[in-house]
Amino acid sequence: MATFVDLNSDMGESFGVYTLGHDADMLAIVSSANVACGFHAGDPLIMSETVTRARENRVDVGAHPSLHDLWGFGRRTIQGEPPEDIEKAVVYQIGALQAIAIHAGHRVTHVKTHGALGNMASADAALARAVARGVKLVDRDLIFVAIAGTELERAGAALDLRVAREVYADRTYQDNGLLTPRKQPGAVLHDAEPAARRVLQMVEEQAIRSVNGVKIPVKIDTICVHGDNPAAVGMARAVRDTLERAGITIRPMSQSIN
Amino acid sequence: MATFVDLNSDMGESFGVYTLGHDADMLAIVSSANVACGFHAGDPLIMSETVTRARENRVDVGAHPSLHDLWGFGRRTIQGEPPEDIEKAVVYQIGALQAIAIHAGHRVTHVKTHGALGNMASADAALARAVARGVKLVDRDLIFVAIAGTELERAGAALDLRVAREVYADRTYQDNGLLTPRKQPGAVLHDAEPAARRVLQMVEEQAIRSVNGVKIPVKIDTICVHGDNPAAVGMARAVRDTLERAGITIRPMSQSIN
Amino acid sequence: MATFVDLNSDMGESFGVYTLGHDADMLAIVSSANVACGFHAGDPLIMSETVTRARENRVDVGAHPSLHDLWGFGRRTIQGEPPEDIEKAVVYQIGALQAIAIHAGHRVTHVKTHGALGNMASADAALARAVARGVKLVDRDLIFVAIAGTELERAGAALDLRVAREVYADRTYQDNGLLTPRKQPGAVLHDAEPAARRVLQMVEEQAIRSVNGVKIPVKIDTICVHGDNPAAVGMARAVRDTLERAGITIRPMSQSIN
Amino acid sequence: MATFVDLNSDMGESFGVYTLGHDADMLAIVSSANVACGFHAGDPLIMSETVTRARENRVDVGAHPSLHDLWGFGRRTIQGEPPEDIEKAVVYQIGALQAIAIHAGHRVTHVKTHGALGNMASADAALARAVARGVKLVDRDLIFVAIAGTELERAGAALDLRVAREVYADRTYQDNGLLTPRKQPGAVLHDAEPAARRVLQMVEEQAIRSVNGVKIPVKIDTICVHGDNPAAVGMARAVRDTLERAGITIRPMSQSIN
Repeated sequence: MATFVDLNSDMGESFGVYTLGHDADMLAIVSSANVACGFHAGDPLIMSETVTRARENRVDVGAHPSLHDLWGFGRRTIQGEPPEDIEKAVVYQIGALQAIAIHAGHRVTHVKTHGALGNMASADAALARAVARGVKLVDRDLIFVAIAGTELERAGAALDLRVAREVYADRTYQDNGLLTPRKQPGAVLHDAEPAARRVLQMVEEQAIRSVNGVKIPVKIDTICVHGDNPAAVGMARAVRDTLERAGITIRPMSQSIN
Repeated sequence: MATFVDLNSDMGESFGVYTLGHDADMLAIVSSANVACGFHAGDPLIMSETVTRARENRVDVGAHPSLHDLWGFGRRTIQGEPPEDIEKAVVYQIGALQAIAIHAGHRVTHVKTHGALGNMASADAALARAVARGVKLVDRDLIFVAIAGTELERAGAALDLRVAREVYADRTYQDNGLLTPRKQPGAVLHDAEPAARRVLQMVEEQAIRSVNGVKIPVKIDTICVHGDNPAAVGMARAVRDTLERAGITIRPMSQSIN
Repeated sequence: MATFVDLNSDMGESFGVYTLGHDADMLAIVSSANVACGFHAGDPLIMSETVTRARENRVDVGAHPSLHDLWGFGRRTIQGEPPEDIEKAVVYQIGALQAIAIHAGHRVTHVKTHGALGNMASADAALARAVARGVKLVDRDLIFVAIAGTELERAGAALDLRVAREVYADRTYQDNGLLTPRKQPGAVLHDAEPAARRVLQMVEEQAIRSVNGVKIPVKIDTICVHGDNPAAVGMARAVRDTLERAGITIRPMSQSIN
Repeated sequence: MATFVDLNSDMGESFGVYTLGHDADMLAIVSSANVACGFHAGDPLIMSETVTRARENRVDVGAHPSLHDLWGFGRRTIQGEPPEDIEKAVVYQIGALQAIAIHAGHRVTHVKTHGALGNMASADAALARAVARGVKLVDRDLIFVAIAGTELERAGAALDLRVAREVYADRTYQDNGLLTPRKQPGAVLHDAEPAARRVLQMVEEQAIRSVNGVKIPVKIDTICVHGDNPAAVGMARAVRDTLERAGITIRPMSQSIN
C-alpha cells in the first residue's frame, strides 16, 4: 500500500507589479512547486523569489512551461506552430528556470506543461513527443509530470523519461479515466473535505474512481492542488491533513520516481 | 608574440518574421558568436537555428544578455532597476541559451552583455559586479567578455572569472584606453582595409593605439566585428584575411583563456 | 463598364529596428494602404511615418487590425477569445491609428482585418458581426474591406457599412468564389504579367474567374497587391500598368464606395 | 472662494488575468478617472470595462499614457527616446482610448501622463512640449492635467491647452511648490484625516502649503487620490467627505476648465 505521495501546485505566477496566488501558504502545504517561466506569467525576479522560498521550505521546483501568451495567461489554444517549434520554446523555459534555480541554490527536478500547452499535448501525440524529447535532451533525469492516460504519459514512457502520474484533487474523472471536461456539470469539486477524502481513497486504492464509480487502476505519484484563492488553499490544506492523518507521507516526487 | 586571437560577432538578432544581420556570412568569418537570448532580439526558434549553424561551422556560442527591451533592441538605458534584479535577468537569459545549446548539440562558453546593459555595466561597478556574480553562480567556467579598462573587466577579475579582453575593429580609442564616444567625430571606422591593418597592429603589439597615437598595452583576447550590413561583413572578412595572412590563427576564446 | 478601381497593400509592418516590406515603392503604386496598428507589427513611430508618407503620396490609409501576436505576425489562429473581446481589440487599434493619422495630417478611411483575424472572421459569422459592429461604433463612415462571398462581407452589409469587395492579384479562386486554400497547388500566382492580365479581365468583367473557368459575377472595388519582396512589387507594378493602359483609373476606394 | 473641485484617480490598471486597484470603490468617490492605455497596464478589455463603469457612475475618463513598459508598470525612466517619438506614443494611446470610449458610449475629456513619463516631462521642457503638442493635435479640447509649477503646466499653457492644475492628497510639498521627492522622509502622508483636512485647506486657500508652512498660491483644479489599497481608498473617501461637508462640490474638471 502507498505510504507516500507528492503534492504539487503551480506557483510564481505573478508578473511585475501584479500578484497572483497564495504562494507563501502553499509552500507550507505542497512538496513540489511548478514555477512559471515567463511565457504565461512570472519574470526573472519572481522566479528567483519563488525558487528561493521553495528551497527554504524544502519544496522541490519544476519548470511550468507554456505557450508564449502573457495576455491570455497561457490558456488560449494557439494553432499553427509545428511541434518542433514548441519543443524549443519548452527547452528555453526549462533552461531559464534551471539557471535561476542554480543561482538561488536550488535545482529543477521536474517539468509540467501549463494550460493550453498541457491540454494540447495531452491530446496530440506528435506534440507530446516533441515536448518529451525537449525535456529529455535538456536533462534526462528531469521528471515528466503527466495526467495518467494521456498522450503526454505515453510520450514520456516511450522516451524512457521518469514519468510522474498525476491526479487532480478538485476534478472528477470519466469512465475512460480522463478528466471530465470543465464545461460539463460536476467537472470541478468545490468542497474541501469530500475532495480530500476522495484523494485519500485514490491514493490508498492507487486507482481513479470515475463519476460513475468505475475503478481505474493507476499508479498515483502526485496530486495537483491549487492556490489561486483562499478556498483552494483550504482544500489543499485539507488534502494534506487528511493524507497525513491516514499515515501517508507527503514527499517530493523526486524521492519516489525511478 | 601573439599567434592567435578570437573574432566575435553578435548573431541571432532576428525575431519572429523579422530578419536582421548576415549570420550565414559571419559564421564563416568569426570563431565566437554572441547569441541574443530573447530580451532585445531572438526567440527560441532563432536561438536554436543560430546555435545549430554555429555548431556546424565550429563556431563557439555565448549568451548575449540584454535589458528587457524588444522595442528598443536593448539600446535604451532603463533606470531604476537594482543591480541584483538585472543579475537575475542575466541569469535567466544565460540559462535559456544553455538549454537551447544542449538541445542543439552545442554548449555555451562565454557571456557578453548587449547594448545599454553593456554600456551601463562598463561604467557602474555595482552593476558590473552583479552581472559577473550572476555569470559565476550559473557556471564559473563561462568566459566573461569585457572591454579592457572597464568596470566589467574589473568585476570579472575580482570574481576570478575567466575574462576575455575585447577590442573593436571599427571603433577608435581615447588616450585613456576607452572607446571614443559614438557622438564624437572619428569614433567609428568605415573603411575595411585600414580597420583591418589597425587590428593587426593591435594584436601584434598587444596594445591599443589611441587616436593620438598613445600606445596602451593590453592583452587582446578577442576582436569584435559586425555583420549588420554588407559593408560590415566586408570589414569583418578583411580583418580575418589580414590576420591570417600575417600568420595569426583565428580560434575561439575558449581555447585560449585560462 | 468599370473605369476605376482601388489598389490596396499592407504597409507599416516594420517594428522597432526591424524593417519589412518595400513601402516606399508600393506608395507609388497603390491608392490605399492598410497600416499595421501594433498588434502584429508596427509601432507608433512606424505608423506615423507610414501615414505621413501615404499622405505625401496621396494614398488613403486604413487600419489593419490583428490578433495580439507580435511573435507570430498575427498569422496564428488563437482560440478561446469571445467575439466581443476581439471587437474591443479591433476598436483599440482603429482608434490608435486614427489619432496617429490626425496627428500626421491625414485620416483613416477604411479597415481591413489582418492574417488569422481575417481568416477567422471570414468564416465565422459571429466574429464577423463583432468586427463589423466595432468598426461601425467607432465611425460608421469607415469602409469595411471584405473578400467577396465571406462572412465579413455579409456582416458589413447587414450593418449597413460601406463595404469594399476585394479580390487578390496573386491568388486563384475556386468555383464557389472563395480563394483556393494556400496549401493546394496553384493557389498562388507567381508571374507578374499573367496575374496582371487576369486582374484586368476580372475588373473589366466585374467577375471572378475560378481555376475551372467558372465566371462568378462580383462588384470589384479593390485589388489586393503585396510588397513583401521585389517580385511582389513587380507584380503590383504590372497590375497597375496593365490596368492604366486599358483605361482603368487607379483611385482610392473612398472616392467610389457609397 | 472655490465651491467645487475635481477628484481624479488612476484606474483600469489591471492586465489580462491580473487585477490591480479598487476601481469599483473609487468610481463612487472620484469625478475623473485616468485610464491606463495598454503601455504600462490595461488592455482593450479592461479599458472598455473601465470606461463603461465610469460612464455608469457619471465619472469622466481621461487617457493615462505611459512609456512602453509593461514589466516595469511604466515606472522606470527610459532614456534615449527623442521627444517627438514619445509624442507619437502618447498620440497612439489617446486614440486607442478615444475609440474604446466611443464604442462604450463615453468620451475622453482629459489626458494625464503616467509614472516615469510624467516625472520626465515635468522636468524636461522639450519633452513636455512634445507631449502637449501631441495632445493638441489629436484634440485641442482635451484637458491637460499637470502638476502646478512643472514644465508640463508651462507647456500646456504655451500651447493654449485647457490645463488642469493638480495637487496630491497624499504628498507633501517643498517651499518651491514642487513635490517632496519620495525618497525624503515625510514625502508621503499615510493618515486619512490629516490628509483630508490639508486638502480642504489647500482648496479653500487655493494655495499649496509647503512642509515649512510657506503658502504658494495656485489655482487648484483637481486633487489626485489613489485606490491601490484599502488604506488609500479610505483616504480618498475621507478627502471627498471632508470637502463635501465643507460645502465643496466634487465635479469633473471638464465642467470647470475653460
